[in-house]
Amino acid sequence: MTVRPMRSPRATIVDVADAAQVSRQTVSNVLNRPDKVAPATLERVQREILRLGFTPHASAQQLRRKRSSAVGFEVNPLGHRRMGHILDEFLVELTVVAPRHASHVVAFAPDPDDVIAAYRQILASGLVDGFVLADTRHTDPRPGWLMEHEVPFVSFGRLWDLPELQCWVDVDGRAGVRAAVAHLVEAGYEQVGFLGWPAGSPVGDDRRAGWAEGLHEAGLTSPGSDEESSNQDLDEATAAAERLLGRLGQGAAIVCASDLLALGALRAVRNLDLEPGRDVGVVGFDDTEVAAAMQLSSVRQPVAEAARVAWDMLLAPTSPEPQAQLLTPTLTVRRTSIRRAP
Amino acid sequence: MTVRPMRSPRATIVDVADAAQVSRQTVSNVLNRPDKVAPATLERVQREILRLGFTPHASAQQLRRKRSSAVGFEVNPLGHRRMGHILDEFLVELTVVAPRHASHVVAFAPDPDDVIAAYRQILASGLVDGFVLADTRHTDPRPGWLMEHEVPFVSFGRLWDLPELQCWVDVDGRAGVRAAVAHLVEAGYEQVGFLGWPAGSPVGDDRRAGWAEGLHEAGLTSPGSDEESSNQDLDEATAAAERLLGRLGQGAAIVCASDLLALGALRAVRNLDLEPGRDVGVVGFDDTEVAAAMQLSSVRQPVAEAARVAWDMLLAPTSPEPQAQLLTPTLTVRRTSIRRAP
Repeated sequence: MTVRPMRSPRATIVDVADAAQVSRQTVSNVLNRPDKVAPATLERVQREILRLGFTPHASAQQLRRKRSSAVGFEVNPLGHRRMGHILDEFLVELTVVAPRHASHVVAFAPDPDDVIAAYRQILASGLVDGFVLADTRHTDPRPGWLMEHEVPFVSFGRLWDLPELQCWVDVDGRAGVRAAVAHLVEAGYEQVGFLGWPAGSPVGDDRRAGWAEGLHEAGLTSPGSDEESSNQDLDEATAAAERLLGRLGQGAAIVCASDLLALGALRAVRNLDLEPGRDVGVVGFDDTEVAAAMQLSSVRQPVAEAARVAWDMLLAPTSPEPQAQLLTPTLTVRRTSIRRAP
Repeated sequence: MTVRPMRSPRATIVDVADAAQVSRQTVSNVLNRPDKVAPATLERVQREILRLGFTPHASAQQLRRKRSSAVGFEVNPLGHRRMGHILDEFLVELTVVAPRHASHVVAFAPDPDDVIAAYRQILASGLVDGFVLADTRHTDPRPGWLMEHEVPFVSFGRLWDLPELQCWVDVDGRAGVRAAVAHLVEAGYEQVGFLGWPAGSPVGDDRRAGWAEGLHEAGLTSPGSDEESSNQDLDEATAAAERLLGRLGQGAAIVCASDLLALGALRAVRNLDLEPGRDVGVVGFDDTEVAAAMQLSSVRQPVAEAARVAWDMLLAPTSPEPQAQLLTPTLTVRRTSIRRAP
């Protein structure tokens, strides 16, 4: 047993405001609109949040005492029409693990114009005791609102704007892309380009950083022309991959930020009368059923493990302090990244 | 307004037993194990069930009066690893419609060895007021158990063993396959073969019947050698399609009971150095994201509409009597069913 610093078992937003000598509203701003808070104040409040252990986990204690409980999980109405939307899989895995915690999962789909209203409503209904967030992003209103209302939650996805909160599990996409680059270099491709999303999405930028790190580790330098971006759209991705291939040429490989982008890359390779794998390597991300069908190599997220960790973090009595966890994805190697003699 | 026969607003299993002059256990057997009941008794009990309006819908009245409610939906832990598992999509669509009924969806994953225990447990927890079933099959213990315990439910999928119950919505797979055959004949393919699942699954047999009807309507006769079956496994499907193509030859088409089987058919076509569409037509079923990626023509189920109908049937005050609904799928035509001059 280690001796841990004494802390209030149930620090509230008021405790944080008192300790940081700011108003409750300022604490709320730190949680909800940190960009609006003066840096010195921001730092002081974040320090008190950490010191006092004001985390969603603190109020999660009450969940453990209840015989039956449920957590809410927000479903994206359009998500399942997007290729490789792994959150459907995550929802199923959450549901599979729930009975181990004598709990259930309540799925709900907010009005996109007022997401918080749906959280408020489902809390008021008494159906759920907490939430599992996913699809976190910059200027996400949900974590701050939940903190302010002392609602227990964990997140599948980093809390990008609230670095002081540790109640998340995520997949190390950067490491996944880095491993894909190493695999392609090892397989004998001479250059490794990147087909990503336009800059600005934290997940996409993280995957791009993994590509740059992978090049560096392999002793390759980026000529600056070995990168293209496209939105999550097949035609746009195909055109971007064609531009990229025009510069990279045969014998190169392309690492993609998603399986849909990789599908565009495969089409671009075939449009040039080249053969994926043999002439140009292609690796996708998410290892969707499309990747399996197309024999596309792809980075696989450990979704079931993420669901287990999320439940443990929210409810298991053995982890009194939440500690953010970054899980390592694996690479599924298929035909599109095996270089063969022409 | 039509005058309808007077009926008890809340007929119970006891009322049915009294009216049919059988024990409660016999009514339970009719619901749960109809094959164990003497035909004359079965018919008498089913007639009383119909006459008394003993339907899950009767007890669904109470749901309408509650301000907040939730329905349970069973998730198959392995389903999302099966290609084209449309029930993930159905769950999302159920969730999207739920707020219109001031309700929510509770997802749960039973232990496959005791499915009923999970229904019993979640009912006991008070979280849900009713259920939406899916993935119904022969000797399905769930509908009978729910009827016996007077738990409101509707089913996405016919209640195959309980023809007297009308509380279901399903998709007319037979009509979908029939339309696919008509399309292929119209496109100029000379023969249309069928690649289905082994006989015995109600859904698969229904799709096979649609193929036979389509041939008949087109004035084609089945030579008996134009059919193969395979389990939902890619290698097995590829081998079955190769056997089928060996008999059908170039210029023919294959209608498949699923997109996975169709993926096997596409591989078989390519293994023979033929081009899908141009040389051999292929149509799948479910219009999964794999179908879109492979440019595979496929029959699409109206999943969002099925979810809307399911909620209406369970809760909407405008439909006092449930009436089973069979929705018509549509055909998404892509490259694999467009015949082009060689």
